[in-house]
Amino acid sequence: MSAERAVPGAFMRAEILEQPRVLAQLIAQPPSAIAGVAPLARRARFAMLAARGSSDNASTFGKYLLESFAGIPTALAAPSLFTLYHRPPRLDAGLVIGVSQSGAAADVIAVLNEARAQGALTLAITNTAGSPITEAAEHVVLLGAGTERALAATKTVTAQCVAYALLTAAIAQDAQLQRALETVPESVRAVLAHTEALEAAARRWRAAQRVAVVGRGYPYAAAQEIALKLKETCYIGAEAYSAADFLHGPLAMIEPGYPVLVLLNHDAAGAMTADFIARVLACGGDVLCFATAQACALLDNVPIGSGQLEVIALDVPSAVLSAIAFIVAGQWFALALALLKGHNPDRSRSVTKITVTR
Amino acid sequence: MSAERAVPGAFMRAEILEQPRVLAQLIAQPPSAIAGVAPLARRARFAMLAARGSSDNASTFGKYLLESFAGIPTALAAPSLFTLYHRPPRLDAGLVIGVSQSGAAADVIAVLNEARAQGALTLAITNTAGSPITEAAEHVVLLGAGTERALAATKTVTAQCVAYALLTAAIAQDAQLQRALETVPESVRAVLAHTEALEAAARRWRAAQRVAVVGRGYPYAAAQEIALKLKETCYIGAEAYSAADFLHGPLAMIEPGYPVLVLLNHDAAGAMTADFIARVLACGGDVLCFATAQACALLDNVPIGSGQLEVIALDVPSAVLSAIAFIVAGQWFALALALLKGHNPDRSRSVTKITVTR
Repeated sequence: MSAERAVPGAFMRAEILEQPRVLAQLIAQPPSAIAGVAPLARRARFAMLAARGSSDNASTFGKYLLESFAGIPTALAAPSLFTLYHRPPRLDAGLVIGVSQSGAAADVIAVLNEARAQGALTLAITNTAGSPITEAAEHVVLLGAGTERALAATKTVTAQCVAYALLTAAIAQDAQLQRALETVPESVRAVLAHTEALEAAARRWRAAQRVAVVGRGYPYAAAQEIALKLKETCYIGAEAYSAADFLHGPLAMIEPGYPVLVLLNHDAAGAMTADFIARVLACGGDVLCFATAQACALLDNVPIGSGQLEVIALDVPSAVLSAIAFIVAGQWFALALALLKGHNPDRSRSVTKITVTR
Repeated sequence: MSAERAVPGAFMRAEILEQPRVLAQLIAQPPSAIAGVAPLARRARFAMLAARGSSDNASTFGKYLLESFAGIPTALAAPSLFTLYHRPPRLDAGLVIGVSQSGAAADVIAVLNEARAQGALTLAITNTAGSPITEAAEHVVLLGAGTERALAATKTVTAQCVAYALLTAAIAQDAQLQRALETVPESVRAVLAHTEALEAAARRWRAAQRVAVVGRGYPYAAAQEIALKLKETCYIGAEAYSAADFLHGPLAMIEPGYPVLVLLNHDAAGAMTADFIARVLACGGDVLCFATAQACALLDNVPIGSGQLEVIALDVPSAVLSAIAFIVAGQWFALALALLKGHNPDRSRSVTKITVTR
């Protein structure tokens, strides 16, 4: 272990590579709480998701799934209303989910405590058996991802995404979503066959100080998580956008050479995302595109203008769940870029693995 | 008008200065739709807010108010689920609000159309009488802010924030919030008495390429809006954070001289925000703090470390509504910085005033 610790990024690298196995196990043997909570959740009028950091990004993915497959309007919690202002909303008709890798997030636990006291249906999603969050919620999903040692969360984030997808498929009784889930481990393996291309792309952006990360629809949550990973491990100003929001203002930032990482999906958001890429290239932007293999044709007629476009095609069949594969691609890219910049992504300046905010 | 157009920033400047009058009028004569919708909204199980760009930031403020004063769990809409995937959530028990300055935002209108078809209570908030959004919603709040000519939205954003506060006060029948609203025009006037200090601060950050903008609790929405304003007008990488989220990763980005704009409020979030400032200063960060006058004492014992701290104290009595005053301070700061950088904030590279996304 101490030898492993000596190699920068060794923990993060090992944990990224564990994901096909960790996710396959979670999908093959879903925690029993998922089947237990699903019939009760069908009666919820709304859902509220409480999380911080990477868990919050997984929860954005969860919002999209719960709204579009289970029909449940889903809000992300504003924890300060519970912990600081003591003015929580009425939660009795809702499903309230708290997500924390460590299970120690005090503000997430405060949301669950209040929700449970109000009579809401409460669920905790965590990687840590016996942690405080498992006491706060009535139902508990343990991810079983094994200890995560790197500072940057990897396998626990994708496991959280899978947990949201399992829960949504169970609530919606959606066999198609369930079958899509079964392709996820293979998709992640397919991404990990492109590590050289991801490292080459990182070399091209070695000097980047700021990056925009853009997705629309289901991959939007992946854009958020990749941006956070780049900030945590590479210390660069990375910001996530929906392609639609980007056109309302931020496009003005793009000048020649501005690095933009775009996630391109083979679904209804694909065509507008390809148009977005064309707009960025016309401004001279430097676009790195993670695309599902089936989406690549959307780029055939995109004019390069004065910009640059590099595409990494990933063999990912499910457009609904491609965010998970995109996150893994972003993890490897962030790891490679951090090492090129001379940082050790297993540790960090200023940030500790477990951050407790109230 | 053509003479005015010739002076860079003349429209934005004039529109910022109109705000005390525009907001005073809106507060003194609230649109009748607010009283009409309030009793119906009291029966809503949840709210969903649909908006893009600056209107989305005003809606984040609306979420905090609706949840904490009216008790209504409030989600921000994911428009792609309506417009691209055609898988909207169930909205019949909800209050659904669409916000668009121009009233032309196709995706916001699509959310309202779907919500109305499902039997939800629908409300449009817009500055443009007769615009398409006024046909989509059952109830319509017209802001009456007058034509906005600058590309960067200013008076319409603060008017949207006031509309959310008026609506919340009416739903919650909260006389205290109503009285707090009456202090807003004077607060904005107080901010506009500090234009010189804001311009001096802009000179100090003249060379900044990236900025973090941080708030917690009610001012969080103001952090989002100020970051967007800096992106639109100054073309710098500005990102908004909750102080709590910032500690979960992004703190690692802070290196000596990193510019961080912090909003400090005299409420329960104030103490942790002051602690946050101390953490940033310890990393050598360059902090510009917009603080309510009553919050300044929180900074008395903050060690400066290797960082820099500049405070602009603003005479803003309401901590719940201080976001509106902070937004105005940020507008003037962004205007000054844009002019120093040689940009004309009335126009923009790449972005048009009305952006229609689907």
